[in-house]
Amino acid sequence: MTDPAATAQAALDAKTKPRGSLGRLEELACRIAAIRGTAEPGRLRAAIVVAAADHGVADEGVSAYPQEVTRQMLANFAGGGAAVSVLARAAGAAVHVVDAGVGRPSGNIAVGPAMTRADAEAALAAGRGLATGLEAEIVGLGEMGIANSTVAAALAAALLTARPEDVCGRGTGLDDVGVANKVEVVRRALAANAVDADDPVGVLAALGGAEIATLAGVALGAAATRRVVLLDGFISSTAALVAARIEPASRDAMIAAHRSPEPGHALVLDALGLEPLLDLGLRLGEGSGAALALPIIDASLAILADMATFDAAGVTDAGR
Amino acid sequence: MTDPAATAQAALDAKTKPRGSLGRLEELACRIAAIRGTAEPGRLRAAIVVAAADHGVADEGVSAYPQEVTRQMLANFAGGGAAVSVLARAAGAAVHVVDAGVGRPSGNIAVGPAMTRADAEAALAAGRGLATGLEAEIVGLGEMGIANSTVAAALAAALLTARPEDVCGRGTGLDDVGVANKVEVVRRALAANAVDADDPVGVLAALGGAEIATLAGVALGAAATRRVVLLDGFISSTAALVAARIEPASRDAMIAAHRSPEPGHALVLDALGLEPLLDLGLRLGEGSGAALALPIIDASLAILADMATFDAAGVTDAGR
Repeated sequence: MTDPAATAQAALDAKTKPRGSLGRLEELACRIAAIRGTAEPGRLRAAIVVAAADHGVADEGVSAYPQEVTRQMLANFAGGGAAVSVLARAAGAAVHVVDAGVGRPSGNIAVGPAMTRADAEAALAAGRGLATGLEAEIVGLGEMGIANSTVAAALAAALLTARPEDVCGRGTGLDDVGVANKVEVVRRALAANAVDADDPVGVLAALGGAEIATLAGVALGAAATRRVVLLDGFISSTAALVAARIEPASRDAMIAAHRSPEPGHALVLDALGLEPLLDLGLRLGEGSGAALALPIIDASLAILADMATFDAAGVTDAGR
Repeated sequence: MTDPAATAQAALDAKTKPRGSLGRLEELACRIAAIRGTAEPGRLRAAIVVAAADHGVADEGVSAYPQEVTRQMLANFAGGGAAVSVLARAAGAAVHVVDAGVGRPSGNIAVGPAMTRADAEAALAAGRGLATGLEAEIVGLGEMGIANSTVAAALAAALLTARPEDVCGRGTGLDDVGVANKVEVVRRALAANAVDADDPVGVLAALGGAEIATLAGVALGAAATRRVVLLDGFISSTAALVAARIEPASRDAMIAAHRSPEPGHALVLDALGLEPLLDLGLRLGEGSGAALALPIIDASLAILADMATFDAAGVTDAGR
């Protein structure tokens, strides 16, 4: 057998447990074997890339928080006090914070393009370069950027040909009036920017943000180097969708950590064909859900690497 | 404020994240604060008690595996090669294996009582004693015992007044014919043993098993000493249901780790009013799902203990 996933499944079937009884943990181990190109991936190191940027569309009042919070959170990440800092520490993962445009907001997508095509390509390239230099085999996608759930909603609407009302949620805490305004802003963004869904880089330049472009590049770079790409919430998953539209094979390296209550997240995950591991009502971003899923991934690899076989343990195998 | 859960929630609301944005992780931290009786529970040590026993009802052909596997698995637990061994190690939890009756099967419930009331009371007392001596504040309930999903099905049917077909599943791998036989065996057990659902110890003696009685005692002892009781799958959750029927307040100490595909599990968790943390198709038992949920519990406590506040981090709090 030369198919790493099939070889890993055969190894799991020889372990002291009923066949398939560890459910999605077994699927996960086999998935990672396929990504890594080996039936024995061992235990893997993890890093979470948190890309941060500001967005011109914040001027449209689409966030409950002022734009200054993006910069303040950079300091909080550096100090280790943010949610992703704490959760990554608990999971033994490194955090890499990337200032992709904090204090240098992208253009307001409600009235015109976020950036030039050259800017989008530069951010993608920077993300690729970052990913390929990481000392980690699992790369979590995290983000911070006031107003970026509006940006992600516009991107998802354009790439999935979805209605704005189906991809706009409360973000970090909008009320009903705020959500209605956000839907209208996304509608204006789609009207102001004529995009072609078959040109993902063009869509990214028109409706994206610098942190989302960077993360799409991270996903591409990680996938190209057989690293596991671990999605977080709606925004990072939209970055992953951009990556998958640019390079469809990158999808095979992706694992969805969790399902957020943002309505667009389910649509994006469905488009990627990914079923999330966790469903805990997380709606924070930063890579927090990715960090929380890391121990489950590690557990799946520990099962593959360390469980005894029926033969070695002298346990009768009824399923043989 | 003297309510630990409310004080913990207030502390979480002051952390650098939108209010409630960590969803069930926040609920979990508050729940543990209430169980521990302190708004600052800190990080907790975990142990998984794996109780093992044999069952006379195995004679009815209700398991895909021969009874000798129970004893073989004791050796596998000791050697650290079983699934729960590997998953507990990954989570930094201790495993305590209890031989509650391996090689000394309980009576065949299809034809009469499993044990005497005195035996059931002795097993409950042994479990209580074990729990109160553990050097851990979180106690996972694990089990091993060929045929014990049939025993749990009979207990659940009696305690919940449920139909046998609604609580019998494939266990470790029955086919449709096997499940039909299991349903019939549970029907015979309920006919052969006249039980009163309002007498949980009587139900336990008639339809239970020694490992389930021991785990019910572990749950009672852990709850009485403000330890967190972490349920695993259908069988351990049925033991927890027995405990909750004996001492209703013990329910407040319980957390459901995961939802198994066994149809009876959802009924038991509903009766306990518990929503599981994970849904990963696990159907192994041993405490494997409990071990897998430990990092999520630890993460919730790390958030409560270690995240920065808006004030300390100098982040603008829009939700104030």
